[in-house]
Amino acid sequence: MSRKRFDTLNCSIAGTLELVGDWWTLLVVRDAFFGANSFTDFRKNLGISRNILTDRLQRLLDAGILEKFQSSDTSKRELYRLTTKGKDLLPLLVSMMQWGDRWINGPGHEPVTLVSRTSAEQIRQIRVETEGHESLMPEQLGFIPGPGADQTTRQRFARK
Amino acid sequence: MSRKRFDTLNCSIAGTLELVGDWWTLLVVRDAFFGANSFTDFRKNLGISRNILTDRLQRLLDAGILEKFQSSDTSKRELYRLTTKGKDLLPLLVSMMQWGDRWINGPGHEPVTLVSRTSAEQIRQIRVETEGHESLMPEQLGFIPGPGADQTTRQRFARK
Repeated sequence: MSRKRFDTLNCSIAGTLELVGDWWTLLVVRDAFFGANSFTDFRKNLGISRNILTDRLQRLLDAGILEKFQSSDTSKRELYRLTTKGKDLLPLLVSMMQWGDRWINGPGHEPVTLVSRTSAEQIRQIRVETEGHESLMPEQLGFIPGPGADQTTRQRFARK
Repeated sequence: MSRKRFDTLNCSIAGTLELVGDWWTLLVVRDAFFGANSFTDFRKNLGISRNILTDRLQRLLDAGILEKFQSSDTSKRELYRLTTKGKDLLPLLVSMMQWGDRWINGPGHEPVTLVSRTSAEQIRQIRVETEGHESLMPEQLGFIPGPGADQTTRQRFARK
């Protein structure tokens, strides 16, 4: 999808999908959260071809989601880690995992459980809520043009 | 991506990506949240070809994310709405929007602002937290094999 298309949509979801909306790209990010940091790790965990993995790692480096670093041991291997921008994808991945847990694998069949390393407490269901912790159903959600709204967005959400 | 591949990964994120991890599919869902419900609406908002839209709507119906209903006016038009399964994608879409707001459009340039229709309060940043509202950074997150873990997943997360 071209940059033009994304600009036309004036939408942060479209923008995010353009950067990470590819099956393998997001699974590489998932694996980095799980602790993978080498080409060999990613390849083994995902069972992905060298070519595809090389391409997706480069895309993630170009997007500033992953960065390279050198291993501290004598091998001085080239490794990959998430940047701040990459780590900020955590809520997106956890939302995806929770939806899949509920609607694909089903309750009682979750492959992985997320916990706090500090308290060992489980992660709660991600919710859309206000600063005052009012939890919102889709019907209660309103959309208004933001500071970066273009004319189409302003017209669209003014009509509601 | 084949069902075999998805099963091999034993992962709810992979499963979710298989169902909705296509650019246009998620943008159709986004548009349904924004209030679009007819073929014409989706087509106008997304600037998408008839063929692609027909295909994505069918995928979403097959996946049980959208359902058809008949308009209550005299036109008896065939319309589309989100099912419970579809509405449950809201946290995923909001996470995506917030990430794009921060990292693509940038603060002060957000195209759309989400608010509560009840209180008019803005939606807060989605966080990964425990039931006790302990907010977690990626480093504090632990992964343990869930009830649906296969042997590979059990071995992988037992090693950490």
